[in-house]
Amino acid sequence: MSPSIQFPELNQPLLKKSDVFAWAKSHYRDRTFSKDEQIPTRSGLIYLVEQGAIRIVGQSQMNVLNTKATEEITSEEVFLGFIGEGQPFEIVSQPQFKLQAYSHLDETVLIWIYWQDLELLPNLRQEIFESFRYQHQRKLFWLSILGQKRSVDRLMGFLNLLVEEYGKPCEQGYYLPYPLTHSQMASAIGTTRVTVTRLMGKLRQQGLIFLYDEHLIGLPKLLQ
Amino acid sequence: MSPSIQFPELNQPLLKKSDVFAWAKSHYRDRTFSKDEQIPTRSGLIYLVEQGAIRIVGQSQMNVLNTKATEEITSEEVFLGFIGEGQPFEIVSQPQFKLQAYSHLDETVLIWIYWQDLELLPNLRQEIFESFRYQHQRKLFWLSILGQKRSVDRLMGFLNLLVEEYGKPCEQGYYLPYPLTHSQMASAIGTTRVTVTRLMGKLRQQGLIFLYDEHLIGLPKLLQ
Repeated sequence: MSPSIQFPELNQPLLKKSDVFAWAKSHYRDRTFSKDEQIPTRSGLIYLVEQGAIRIVGQSQMNVLNTKATEEITSEEVFLGFIGEGQPFEIVSQPQFKLQAYSHLDETVLIWIYWQDLELLPNLRQEIFESFRYQHQRKLFWLSILGQKRSVDRLMGFLNLLVEEYGKPCEQGYYLPYPLTHSQMASAIGTTRVTVTRLMGKLRQQGLIFLYDEHLIGLPKLLQ
Repeated sequence: MSPSIQFPELNQPLLKKSDVFAWAKSHYRDRTFSKDEQIPTRSGLIYLVEQGAIRIVGQSQMNVLNTKATEEITSEEVFLGFIGEGQPFEIVSQPQFKLQAYSHLDETVLIWIYWQDLELLPNLRQEIFESFRYQHQRKLFWLSILGQKRSVDRLMGFLNLLVEEYGKPCEQGYYLPYPLTHSQMASAIGTTRVTVTRLMGKLRQQGLIFLYDEHLIGLPKLLQ
């Protein structure tokens, strides 16, 4: 399993990420995915998004208050966030929790690298750790939002968080360049799709959100 | 602000964490807190828990669907997790999100260190980054739990997660060595204190949880 690949051209103090992408491609460690395809991840590998976006989802195994106490119920998939271009991710699961990655956009390109390869690439390794440190901070903010009792506060906080991180400017404000279904939003904030649909209508009426290009969520400048 | 302190005795390849604690104490970079005291954190510093436990809480600033749209409401504090002995934490806030650390137990001892000091302590630095990587993974599991629609599933998943990470064995199973109020649990899973009280009663009746030492939460072995 352990790779014995040499990095003669990469073992440099100031490695650029573009070099890593080029190297991975020349060693068949890249793949292009179409929208909503599941990424066949393996533990011990770290993935970098070169193009497109990844959606991370989670499931937890429940055995609480069921008719049969021994029967395990697999929960619905919960949306846990995006991994955008240039960002790394890894998928670690354990019996009670199952994480998965899907390509969120068409033509999403990934490369992968072994953790132990990173010993030879200290700068990239450092960059990846800094990214996880940052992602951890963002998840603490996300958890702060999910502690709100009202669904509308959770929904609005959730949208703010995503637009702040990934938003692109437009005339009215900023929009999230990744489409999100009401089901995905509902799973992220622990409510039903029906509630999200109702709240999204209400928020649009009040001008607190808008639609960009008819399907992408935007936030007016004042809310930024 | 930047420290110009030398680490003659610490700049070793195989630094032990105990050495760091000793060094910090000899340089007045340690402090003992009593229960529920707020930690006066500063950005650019990294904190290590030598003894006791830290509780991280978050607040998000909301301005959604209020009577006055311009008025900001500061949400209640949301429980975001524990930092146990030997673990590092940092507090990064931004205008919309405010994170804070409290000592969760009496006689909680912290030391602190500047990020730039860690350049001289590569092993400790690596250990800290690995810890953040791990904490990030745990938060993804936590978010998977919070996406559950039923409060009881969120509560049970949340308790499982904490006991799995911090639990200590006892005759009946494992118990969480840190007390948690129903309010704190409610804030973590986005429900009311009243609901948590009702659900905790129900879960105890069904034998899915038990109380250890009359105030600590335990999970029977079967659920582990």
